[in-house]
Amino acid sequence: MKIGILTIGNELTSGRIQDTNSALISRAMQEQGWAVARMISVGDDDGAIHDALAHLLARADGVIVTGGLGPTADDITTAAVAKAFGLGLYSDPAVLAHIRSIFEGRGLHWTENNAKQAVFPDGAEIIPNPAGTAAGFALRRERRIVAVIPGVPAEAKRMLFEGVIPLFRNAFPGAALHVETLTFKLFGLPEAAVDDAMADADLAGLGVGIGFYPNFPENHLVLTVREASAERAAEKLREARKRVEARLGKHIFAMGDETLAGNVARRMTERKLTLAVAESCTGGLITDRLTDIPGSSAFLERGFVTYSNAAKTALLGIPETVIREHGAVSAETARLMAEGARKSAGTDLGIAVTGVAGPSGGTEAKPVGTVFIALADGGKTVCRPHAFRWDRRRNKVFASQAALLMIWRHLTGELRNDG
Amino acid sequence: MKIGILTIGNELTSGRIQDTNSALISRAMQEQGWAVARMISVGDDDGAIHDALAHLLARADGVIVTGGLGPTADDITTAAVAKAFGLGLYSDPAVLAHIRSIFEGRGLHWTENNAKQAVFPDGAEIIPNPAGTAAGFALRRERRIVAVIPGVPAEAKRMLFEGVIPLFRNAFPGAALHVETLTFKLFGLPEAAVDDAMADADLAGLGVGIGFYPNFPENHLVLTVREASAERAAEKLREARKRVEARLGKHIFAMGDETLAGNVARRMTERKLTLAVAESCTGGLITDRLTDIPGSSAFLERGFVTYSNAAKTALLGIPETVIREHGAVSAETARLMAEGARKSAGTDLGIAVTGVAGPSGGTEAKPVGTVFIALADGGKTVCRPHAFRWDRRRNKVFASQAALLMIWRHLTGELRNDG
Repeated sequence: MKIGILTIGNELTSGRIQDTNSALISRAMQEQGWAVARMISVGDDDGAIHDALAHLLARADGVIVTGGLGPTADDITTAAVAKAFGLGLYSDPAVLAHIRSIFEGRGLHWTENNAKQAVFPDGAEIIPNPAGTAAGFALRRERRIVAVIPGVPAEAKRMLFEGVIPLFRNAFPGAALHVETLTFKLFGLPEAAVDDAMADADLAGLGVGIGFYPNFPENHLVLTVREASAERAAEKLREARKRVEARLGKHIFAMGDETLAGNVARRMTERKLTLAVAESCTGGLITDRLTDIPGSSAFLERGFVTYSNAAKTALLGIPETVIREHGAVSAETARLMAEGARKSAGTDLGIAVTGVAGPSGGTEAKPVGTVFIALADGGKTVCRPHAFRWDRRRNKVFASQAALLMIWRHLTGELRNDG
Repeated sequence: MKIGILTIGNELTSGRIQDTNSALISRAMQEQGWAVARMISVGDDDGAIHDALAHLLARADGVIVTGGLGPTADDITTAAVAKAFGLGLYSDPAVLAHIRSIFEGRGLHWTENNAKQAVFPDGAEIIPNPAGTAAGFALRRERRIVAVIPGVPAEAKRMLFEGVIPLFRNAFPGAALHVETLTFKLFGLPEAAVDDAMADADLAGLGVGIGFYPNFPENHLVLTVREASAERAAEKLREARKRVEARLGKHIFAMGDETLAGNVARRMTERKLTLAVAESCTGGLITDRLTDIPGSSAFLERGFVTYSNAAKTALLGIPETVIREHGAVSAETARLMAEGARKSAGTDLGIAVTGVAGPSGGTEAKPVGTVFIALADGGKTVCRPHAFRWDRRRNKVFASQAALLMIWRHLTGELRNDG
């Protein structure tokens, strides 16, 4: 089964807004085992919509259209699609009543242009909008189906999964395969090294697709199986997972929707451990990522952003002589920062980062991207040097990732105490 | 002049990667005064590339193609475009030597498949790649021009501005209008209120386009003029700017490429002021945003992420009785946090945020989204209550934005000392 996607709006063709719906829809189609043949974007232009729709209908079994369903004059999708199909328009009383009730419920003033959102092509199947006033609709012609939904991403997403996909599955029952995917999240391993490691795994022979997707600062490895039965799909994926884990296990820090910060938070909380963070070049990004996780107050006691040397001395007890002799960016300072944060907070663990984020501040001995990360647990303090080669923001992101990974490896017992 | 954009890659049609090139290119075209007629994405498929290219060539004067110029077997763009134009292929010795020199310079092992990146359609004009090994090329046919560049966004961007746009301007000299845009960045004002405020400005009568674009957590107002002469465009924009500033001036915190954090950093540095930050619910996000600005160590002395009550007491000197009586989320605590941070660091200013980010932790009196932000300057301490209504991450982002805006308003003298 082939799919075409048409996204409509001047905000797209002018580059003002990034079209995220096409990627969302194509990913969902992939998950259904349906191939996306074309994705087209056009402005709010009658002729262009007509032309693009004809192009897609000649090349796809199902076409999904988003955008241009609003109440204002530039929202012309419904009329343009009706015209392309040679259909008239009608106003649906039930939808009109529903829109009016939304306005009343929100205490909004009703203006007549809102009635436009209750207008559909003759014979359209209405796709309800559980999150807004713009209902969608579907039209069928010669074993092909077109579904039209709003462009607002949150509404498009719900209506895609609750309306469009069930409609397409019914329209093309034979086309539905059980598609299962499994995502492994890795950090610090280039694509070529993953390729190399997986070379003898023969996933192709197993009938499992493998994809490798950079997702800064992480790399995601995605397995995909398409099978007639859910059982067979799950079975293949289990075997493939074993083969991946045997080869890349130590580089995997999360699966599927898990995140590195989320896994650190969960493990810290489960083990009733507490953490203090001392950041210099990452500037608060580590605690920002950890505090994105609900419930992080269970383990995160405090963070220090010791941007000045005076702050490092006053808050973490780093002797001025250490900073003078070894530098604020040094293994010695990083270790004392981790130990000082831990001691100040009375926590189980202390993690510290100090480095040169750039673009200036680098020296020959310590160029931009030099970062030291230390973890103190009250026993030995481990410190790791890093040499990142990105711009300021990405050096910060990489350093925060490496620091979280260091905590994660400590928690999983993989952090060697060789520092 | 009409433009077509074709982005190529299975990673796009599978939804694995968000296509950012289409938005980048369409925005650049808009800035040149050229209209984007269609944007199409297809997979790495010979027939689909041919078909989409023919569709675009029938509807546009210039077509920009990205992706599929790599060295591996699935990179088929060059061959597919040559086939679509009925052209043979040749290997360019100068490009081949250049690619080999890049490999040598990086100490990389040369494999023969890399020679593929020196192959071009007969008669192609080569578009150099200053950032990588994949050169681009252009072909002309019957007053139409096709330019092909790599899909890697950083390379695509440089080659677009340094190669493709100059080529198109030469090919269609009459098509170039002077297009000037001006972006106003606002916070905390809904679209309807902006509409209302601008209703009597008559920018349309002036021939200036106005667009309003939500850009979480900010709102951007963009003026656009297209004129034959640069002087006339600038003149119209000056007049339009006056009208916008007269109506919305106090909500504008940045213009064009400026950012709120960047403007705060610049003004703090210019005035030789120093800052300490105390964060609870924002978890380090404020210092993270400030330290994204190069040179922020000139004014940012330190930050505290006082996530626990013990940390608030130990580091900022908040009496336990205040937290017990008023709560950690209270105006009283926020004020003392700002004053405590300022005093601890010995800085000119102290800013503090405490609140309930959610999803849990809310009470009837202080629901999720309740946030207090205080600014201390050694004289009076100003505190503002907020009630955000987003999810956890967006409550954090909104709170950090409100805090940075509070510093900005203090620096511009707009912060009323009524707190």
